[in-house]
Amino acid sequence: MSDASIRIALVGGGVGSFIGGIHRMAAQLDGRFALVAGVFGRDPAKSRVRGREWGVPIDRIYADHSELIIGEAQRQDGVACIVIATPNESHFAIASDALRAGLHVICDKPMTATLEQAELLVPIVAASRGIYALTFTYTGYAMVREARARIAAGDIGEVRKIVVDYPQGWLSNGAGDAQIWRLDPARAGLGGCAGDIGVHAFQLAEYVSGQRVTELNAMLSSMVAGRRLDDDCNVLMRLTNGGVAVLTASQIATGERNGLSIRVHGASGTLAWRHEDPAVLRIDRGNGRSELLHAGAPDSCPAAKRATRLPMGHPEGFIEAMATIYRDVADALLGTAPSLIDGEVPGVTDGLRSMRFIDRAIVSNRHGRWTSMEERP
Amino acid sequence: MSDASIRIALVGGGVGSFIGGIHRMAAQLDGRFALVAGVFGRDPAKSRVRGREWGVPIDRIYADHSELIIGEAQRQDGVACIVIATPNESHFAIASDALRAGLHVICDKPMTATLEQAELLVPIVAASRGIYALTFTYTGYAMVREARARIAAGDIGEVRKIVVDYPQGWLSNGAGDAQIWRLDPARAGLGGCAGDIGVHAFQLAEYVSGQRVTELNAMLSSMVAGRRLDDDCNVLMRLTNGGVAVLTASQIATGERNGLSIRVHGASGTLAWRHEDPAVLRIDRGNGRSELLHAGAPDSCPAAKRATRLPMGHPEGFIEAMATIYRDVADALLGTAPSLIDGEVPGVTDGLRSMRFIDRAIVSNRHGRWTSMEERP
Amino acid sequence: MSDASIRIALVGGGVGSFIGGIHRMAAQLDGRFALVAGVFGRDPAKSRVRGREWGVPIDRIYADHSELIIGEAQRQDGVACIVIATPNESHFAIASDALRAGLHVICDKPMTATLEQAELLVPIVAASRGIYALTFTYTGYAMVREARARIAAGDIGEVRKIVVDYPQGWLSNGAGDAQIWRLDPARAGLGGCAGDIGVHAFQLAEYVSGQRVTELNAMLSSMVAGRRLDDDCNVLMRLTNGGVAVLTASQIATGERNGLSIRVHGASGTLAWRHEDPAVLRIDRGNGRSELLHAGAPDSCPAAKRATRLPMGHPEGFIEAMATIYRDVADALLGTAPSLIDGEVPGVTDGLRSMRFIDRAIVSNRHGRWTSMEERP
Amino acid sequence: MSDASIRIALVGGGVGSFIGGIHRMAAQLDGRFALVAGVFGRDPAKSRVRGREWGVPIDRIYADHSELIIGEAQRQDGVACIVIATPNESHFAIASDALRAGLHVICDKPMTATLEQAELLVPIVAASRGIYALTFTYTGYAMVREARARIAAGDIGEVRKIVVDYPQGWLSNGAGDAQIWRLDPARAGLGGCAGDIGVHAFQLAEYVSGQRVTELNAMLSSMVAGRRLDDDCNVLMRLTNGGVAVLTASQIATGERNGLSIRVHGASGTLAWRHEDPAVLRIDRGNGRSELLHAGAPDSCPAAKRATRLPMGHPEGFIEAMATIYRDVADALLGTAPSLIDGEVPGVTDGLRSMRFIDRAIVSNRHGRWTSMEERP
Repeated sequence: MSDASIRIALVGGGVGSFIGGIHRMAAQLDGRFALVAGVFGRDPAKSRVRGREWGVPIDRIYADHSELIIGEAQRQDGVACIVIATPNESHFAIASDALRAGLHVICDKPMTATLEQAELLVPIVAASRGIYALTFTYTGYAMVREARARIAAGDIGEVRKIVVDYPQGWLSNGAGDAQIWRLDPARAGLGGCAGDIGVHAFQLAEYVSGQRVTELNAMLSSMVAGRRLDDDCNVLMRLTNGGVAVLTASQIATGERNGLSIRVHGASGTLAWRHEDPAVLRIDRGNGRSELLHAGAPDSCPAAKRATRLPMGHPEGFIEAMATIYRDVADALLGTAPSLIDGEVPGVTDGLRSMRFIDRAIVSNRHGRWTSMEERP
Repeated sequence: MSDASIRIALVGGGVGSFIGGIHRMAAQLDGRFALVAGVFGRDPAKSRVRGREWGVPIDRIYADHSELIIGEAQRQDGVACIVIATPNESHFAIASDALRAGLHVICDKPMTATLEQAELLVPIVAASRGIYALTFTYTGYAMVREARARIAAGDIGEVRKIVVDYPQGWLSNGAGDAQIWRLDPARAGLGGCAGDIGVHAFQLAEYVSGQRVTELNAMLSSMVAGRRLDDDCNVLMRLTNGGVAVLTASQIATGERNGLSIRVHGASGTLAWRHEDPAVLRIDRGNGRSELLHAGAPDSCPAAKRATRLPMGHPEGFIEAMATIYRDVADALLGTAPSLIDGEVPGVTDGLRSMRFIDRAIVSNRHGRWTSMEERP
Repeated sequence: MSDASIRIALVGGGVGSFIGGIHRMAAQLDGRFALVAGVFGRDPAKSRVRGREWGVPIDRIYADHSELIIGEAQRQDGVACIVIATPNESHFAIASDALRAGLHVICDKPMTATLEQAELLVPIVAASRGIYALTFTYTGYAMVREARARIAAGDIGEVRKIVVDYPQGWLSNGAGDAQIWRLDPARAGLGGCAGDIGVHAFQLAEYVSGQRVTELNAMLSSMVAGRRLDDDCNVLMRLTNGGVAVLTASQIATGERNGLSIRVHGASGTLAWRHEDPAVLRIDRGNGRSELLHAGAPDSCPAAKRATRLPMGHPEGFIEAMATIYRDVADALLGTAPSLIDGEVPGVTDGLRSMRFIDRAIVSNRHGRWTSMEERP
Repeated sequence: MSDASIRIALVGGGVGSFIGGIHRMAAQLDGRFALVAGVFGRDPAKSRVRGREWGVPIDRIYADHSELIIGEAQRQDGVACIVIATPNESHFAIASDALRAGLHVICDKPMTATLEQAELLVPIVAASRGIYALTFTYTGYAMVREARARIAAGDIGEVRKIVVDYPQGWLSNGAGDAQIWRLDPARAGLGGCAGDIGVHAFQLAEYVSGQRVTELNAMLSSMVAGRRLDDDCNVLMRLTNGGVAVLTASQIATGERNGLSIRVHGASGTLAWRHEDPAVLRIDRGNGRSELLHAGAPDSCPAAKRATRLPMGHPEGFIEAMATIYRDVADALLGTAPSLIDGEVPGVTDGLRSMRFIDRAIVSNRHGRWTSMEERP
């Protein structure tokens, strides 16, 4: 590791985990972080195997996050930052313990399992010396950032309508449901599809457009028999500025892979981005042209440039998007760009709003009516 | 004209009209119809010029539809069928007069200007000897019909979710609003975006999926100041079988051209079609493949084959889609395939449902709540 | 038919013919021509059936082109123009007879079966009062014309390289070869793939770029055993201005439909067009953007506008492209735009060059060396 | 670093280098290698800065590759492997010195600057105990490997035609030519476009198809005035089995980014892959469908699975492709899969053929004739 590398611990990433390994690769891609400690799943034996695979010294593979925090605090070369990639149920406990111990926190979305936990976490972050970053991975794509910067600069005029769509098909049949923690309210929290991918779509809509949702009207469904959480989620939304948004998300869209897309229609132009073709931002202005802006374009915004490692025409993907968030967190941690947090890099603000989105969507669906984003049940 | 040609009159298609000229081209493309009479706009001089351009004898260019019906009735070689391509306000009067006079009717969507007119027209059609066909043009595309046939045959299992999206940008600014009859409630009827393109999306969803919408929850907006009708329309819907649908339509999606698309997610597969690439039907079944079925595939359904004139790889477009509807109407008129009407070719059933959709969407939006498709205000 | 309609006869279009029916539809689409006579295949009974289907009076369905020319010459309302959509072997005889009889000629490509016939036809056209138009259908697409106009205007600077690619797969196996006239040298002429689709690619390259090929180096193959003509054709070419071109065409590209595409790389930009998505012209200028210019864009060139009937977002296809050529021929025939012939509308110049291309490609391939486009064997 | 990490040194990757940094990221992505030594450019001060940035201890940043080999040989924890990412001129010297010192070599393409050097290197590799891997990065993409495995298994029948196309535009104008080592014969070697990207296209064609080129006919050009090496390269080729191939490559294709693509047409199917959409392999079989096979499909071949880290729908790009080569090299080095070298991972065989391709293309172009791949000038 470089002298300049920031030492991190990972909680999560056990066998079968999807996102833990991505955090590891992303953290190290640009050489800014070194993974030196962790808890890699709940089974100690498997955790040690995984930890060794990833080059973590055996004495820094801990039984749980509490031991990890204590153990690392006693070392001169203890970690500065903890990465949380566990099921949602434990996000709050790990994050709050780590923050109280003076560690920085990088947590995978959603912020917590419940809205109440999220509301409790906000003052803990505020009271801590640490940075709290939430990895909504799609915010690490260059062209998502370019879209955000362009809209903020007025490039498409007043935002009138957002259409954000997130179809996945991996839960279109019920076989194996019992093994999937995302389907268990005790582990996933209050939202199913809404909480797993609806929050991505919601956060992306607010992140890119710069608008805030004021009220929403949701239709949630459990299409596969026996599910206790929603597996399909559709929401009409109104925005602060009078604009509107429509969010469609699904885990039962058979055969779809990970087809997140967003279109923002402004008074003078439209921006469109699709995760399946992430290096392109489509811009339409009503002049008979669609402009495809490529990642790496020489006049990209600074945030897009920070998210681009390679010359145009060399695809960068999901790991790189996550790595870009890590790179920004490194700059924030080292004090060179603290303003990135809760700016380009989502933090408690986006986190809390996302949790409220889930809560409001469930309430709206239950009562079949429009519900304010601010209203309490 | 061929001996077998069916003689038609066109009401509409004056200077500046978009759809009238398409009806003319489509009717004649396959040689099944001959345009021999008409009223080509409200200005008699301009009507004569347009009629002559189109090869209509001067004595069969009439002042209005009443004169046309009377004049043609007096001829041995009078028309058998009237095509209505006027603003919505006159659809009801022309259709009902023509049907009562024993003429067949081909009418551009929407059926009428109001739901009440549509309800009045249904028994008039039933009592007439004539055929009543409604040109929802998108139903003439081969791959739309292929999708419909596949879903009816169970190819993707039970329908769970429909996402239908129809962005247009031509009304994204208000310049010229005064010249556009679609923005005038007196001429367009009760719906703006909902009535002009929302009905296309609604009809397509029901047509392709074979499902019926039972209730809906709409958010309509007039984004451009001064408009009395909606220019943006978004609707959550529930289906007879417990499935759901989301419809997004807009005339203020700046820079969008005519981007109608639909995805139907079934329990065992997904079908997706986009008007910008109409010769392709995408099929996903969750096996890591997307199958692109091309118009003209040797094992296409009969309805798709009837809608395909050219070998694979030779694009057919909007005029051909309309022409396919005309071809089917010809078969129905000549008695060789009467069942096509209210089947592959939309008629009063789809027409009435579409009008009810507009009415229900307006009511739902006004009250901010779910509304049954059957409920009267 | 309109007073203004031009009366035409069609030779070809018998049962099983692909292109004949397209000529009929295209000729009538814009109401500028009326099909009133013809020879619809070599079997008189079948010819009458087809002719009646298409509304041609029984007494104007002739046994062969000679009878047709004589018969029509004796009528007051005789045809002004003959359309040739027969196998290549008879193109020369019909065209030269018709021209000598004072008729205009619209002939499907290629010009003739042999280079010698093409060279003989040139002075016959010159000596006639008639117009001679050759339907290279792809020249009727709006965005092909837009590309041509832009390059002529210097929009991408000096042309440096052309890549034109035409894969088809319909002859990838040999079953049914005996029934296909295109595979029979006696009927098709000297070229197989080179003559059937290679000429399209060659003509498109010269048409769009404004450059002329000076020499070429060809590799022709017959991949399927037993074929006497080439079914695969690849050619390196040099251009007048020092630029280069590469042409790849194939009839054995299994599963390909009709995937003609062209890219022209100029000193300051690239234009790209694909037949599978014909309403889009891609423009790249090296600034990190790809501009997709849509057919119907308000600032399209006049030739593209003449080739566009519908608003943006309403697909037009192969029939419309052919119809655009007919529309231009009508303007040329009526004297309002004679310069279109051998300009936007290919005539003897492009026809003769295309025949020479086939001849030179065969010679080059035989000798395995570069061959001048001017050189005689 | 993990106990299992392989220690590597990097020569190259100085400021302004494109590929050096990618080697670093790729080597470390999967945690199999640790970069612990290097020569990061020819300027010692800059090399130290870069080395420290990348976490290399100051005492292992060397002045040149000779010092590095000596220095590392004296350490207990010396590197096992050297990565060569310098301009082509020094590939031979570094590789041969390293191999003789018992190090493994991972070298960026092309193998050497001249064919003679390549021929000298072959026996050096054979005589060494080391592994020699050549990073033709595109071979690391999952769907390139899937295509190769499918063709080898007969999935598209006998290969008849390959069309490989590699347009880039970054050299379309001559500004800055003096700073670009790739344009300097003394540093780049004998090929310009042919040597820089033509070899990629050539290697990809042979790699995917399993065929060997037997003879070729090349047209090379220097389109921008003053260049001594070709900047555009087009080649007709014949294959061992009687099939044909066409290769087009360009560095003056204005505005193109890095648009490598390949189509292989077999007797019973076509495979197509495009670098701009690398996670998709298109398969056409002539049944009216195009099958899009997605990276991560459950029944992918083992080589494609090894090249896929993430679930379907999560893009992986250029860095991951390179990382996959590194992962395979690690398995080969550790003896678990030695057969990957000169198999899935290109080695001296592909390297030598690529150098011969450049040499033969130059000879063929000079003489304007077909040239055997085996023939010496």
